[in-house]
Amino acid sequence: MISLTELKEEVLQQAQLAKIASKQVGTATAEQKNRALLAMAEKLWARREAIFAANHLDVEEARATGQSESRIDRLILHEKRLKDMMEGLRQVSVLPDPVGEVVESFTRADGLRIERVRVPIGVIAMVYESRPNVTADAAGLALKTGNAVILRGGKEALRTNRELVAALREGLAGSGLSAEAIQFINRTERDSVDILIQARGLVDLAIPRGGAGLIGRVVQHAQVPVIETGVGNCHVFVDAKADLGMATEVILNAKTQRPSVCNAMETLLVHEAVGPAWMRQIVEQLQKRGVEIRGCEQTRSWLEQGAEGGNATILPAGEEDWADEFLDLVLAIKVVKTLDEAIEHIDRYGTKHSEAIVTDDVQAAETFLRRVDAAAVYHNASTRFTDGFEYGFGAEIGISTQKLHARGPMGLRELTSYKYIGRGTGQVRS
Amino acid sequence: MISLTELKEEVLQQAQLAKIASKQVGTATAEQKNRALLAMAEKLWARREAIFAANHLDVEEARATGQSESRIDRLILHEKRLKDMMEGLRQVSVLPDPVGEVVESFTRADGLRIERVRVPIGVIAMVYESRPNVTADAAGLALKTGNAVILRGGKEALRTNRELVAALREGLAGSGLSAEAIQFINRTERDSVDILIQARGLVDLAIPRGGAGLIGRVVQHAQVPVIETGVGNCHVFVDAKADLGMATEVILNAKTQRPSVCNAMETLLVHEAVGPAWMRQIVEQLQKRGVEIRGCEQTRSWLEQGAEGGNATILPAGEEDWADEFLDLVLAIKVVKTLDEAIEHIDRYGTKHSEAIVTDDVQAAETFLRRVDAAAVYHNASTRFTDGFEYGFGAEIGISTQKLHARGPMGLRELTSYKYIGRGTGQVRS
Repeated sequence: MISLTELKEEVLQQAQLAKIASKQVGTATAEQKNRALLAMAEKLWARREAIFAANHLDVEEARATGQSESRIDRLILHEKRLKDMMEGLRQVSVLPDPVGEVVESFTRADGLRIERVRVPIGVIAMVYESRPNVTADAAGLALKTGNAVILRGGKEALRTNRELVAALREGLAGSGLSAEAIQFINRTERDSVDILIQARGLVDLAIPRGGAGLIGRVVQHAQVPVIETGVGNCHVFVDAKADLGMATEVILNAKTQRPSVCNAMETLLVHEAVGPAWMRQIVEQLQKRGVEIRGCEQTRSWLEQGAEGGNATILPAGEEDWADEFLDLVLAIKVVKTLDEAIEHIDRYGTKHSEAIVTDDVQAAETFLRRVDAAAVYHNASTRFTDGFEYGFGAEIGISTQKLHARGPMGLRELTSYKYIGRGTGQVRS
Repeated sequence: MISLTELKEEVLQQAQLAKIASKQVGTATAEQKNRALLAMAEKLWARREAIFAANHLDVEEARATGQSESRIDRLILHEKRLKDMMEGLRQVSVLPDPVGEVVESFTRADGLRIERVRVPIGVIAMVYESRPNVTADAAGLALKTGNAVILRGGKEALRTNRELVAALREGLAGSGLSAEAIQFINRTERDSVDILIQARGLVDLAIPRGGAGLIGRVVQHAQVPVIETGVGNCHVFVDAKADLGMATEVILNAKTQRPSVCNAMETLLVHEAVGPAWMRQIVEQLQKRGVEIRGCEQTRSWLEQGAEGGNATILPAGEEDWADEFLDLVLAIKVVKTLDEAIEHIDRYGTKHSEAIVTDDVQAAETFLRRVDAAAVYHNASTRFTDGFEYGFGAEIGISTQKLHARGPMGLRELTSYKYIGRGTGQVRS
């Protein structure tokens, strides 16, 4: 056990090293950074034996302590997943460098020329849970954008992350950049997170990535700026004038194509004018794909009317079902009387992630798109599109559900800040 | 005295009202909002007697409790200042409405069209000190950008602000928008600030405006996103190859044109190659304008060499002089051996606001502009230009010294967020 004082000293020293290294990577050329990204990928492969051995120990411990299979699955690192990580780093290396981009410029009447230029944020603290791929992703994206990164992963993946970081740092150092630009908090004490996210003057941004519990704790204790990511209680609303064939396609995609991700649908809202016949069809289709349904009273009554056995027995949906992000093959269904009621339901239970309406009524669609307050709103399309790769950003560090700085998918651009650069010939203010 | 429970209930109820009203002003047309801004200006004039009477009481109390003259001056509201407030609202009314602007758009290969559109932030909490003009400025800028605002001004200005807000709300309501979009915390308890800045889900952004103490407290206690503004410990660096005539002009402007503002220079850094002769000249010029000088050892020794009496007696500069934002006719001067030393000094003591270099050496200038980490960096120009009006934004709610969301002068655009709007024809993700 380490004392709180020692822990604080250790973490702050790492933050200090990151701060110093951020000056170097912040002014590195695109070529230097891209070379380093390729070297980092190579070192992951070169050190794969040590990485897999460490991962094996992590997985064994997770099994021994009775972790769930889905958690263990997220933790496991095999050759394919390591290659995906390496491929991710290589993909980032070929993206354009956002640092130094002149976003806008103007010349004052007195001749002073002012440019707004993209610059790195500085030091980014990533606080995340068990998936080890975040380690390589975050290190790569931070480096590409000229930032230093401090990685604080989940305790289940400690050994794996330690080996991954050793490889990444070796790659960085081998290409002439400071290995200190990637810091790893080699501690499992929860206090290490608090120290990190309260290190004003050293840490410029904290990004929590994980479940609602982790994100809530970080937001509550942070004294440095935070970008909240990822909790998605997403809805699809089938309007009175929906093309019901299209609605079926969108719903099946939003719910079942990959139910464990944040942009999957969790609650289906159906206008009452749609009626019981289609409701029975869509529920049947969902159930065929293994989806468990929890319905409002109207939904259940409609299903009972047409029941010849099975699907009348769906569970009633309660408050927690409207609020929960299931991340699983579970769907809550609510019948609403009006577009307004749908929007109000989303307003109350949504997490400002991704929301969709299916309708042929353009006015209803525009009302929905304007009034629903979320990072991404869709008309006649699946919520599953909210993703940095689908948006063509070429990379993604997370999906922001807050309104400051970055909203929705965060790519390279969202990991930068800007500064104003004024070039004059002696101008003074009158 | 109000109990903490009652205070909490009262403040959160106001935040709730602001949240509801934010939906209305957030979707109001530019015409509606502009009409309301003009009505708000008119009502300030219509209710001027009540406003001046309230201000008179505030000023009397400030005098009775022994407040400093500069504080009392900031508090005083006379006809000219009220007219300036009204003019500010009118100027904001003619600026283009940023809400609804399509910032970028792209169409995917599958035909799904995605636009990034500016939207209001929602509910903004302004926490500020004694100057009552912030009340009208913040209300006007928030309304123009479709946001609701919760105003929590300094306790010295409580009566004045209460009357100003009554007029502003009357103007808002008279033009058909909800008066609840402007909330005023009619309480002086410091707890009211904490309740406000911890109201997650109701308050979307807190902007503290005032001294370092106020800003520090808000950052430490906030659980909602914060934008730090305004503390400016700004430097001018006179390089070895500076045009010394130009340097003199820039320095006199940066220090004396308006010493009480955040973009005024607080420390002058001089390359040692510049030498004692010019140092004696600039100090003489500054002293003539009433500037008190605090120098490093080299500065004092140079001044002593040439002293025929007076200016050798300058005070030595200590740690606190390098760190302080004097906001007054006081200047710290340090001689540095290299450009690196100047940059390191700024890095250590600066507040990331505005920094300038005077030099004819383009390479030195570019190094300075690239390496100095501040919202605005200048080559051969005064630090005083960092200002929303000087940048042509037409308005300013403050100057951000942090790197997230907004950096430097914050105009209308910086009071908005964005959302992605996808319009499809049934696209699903494969």
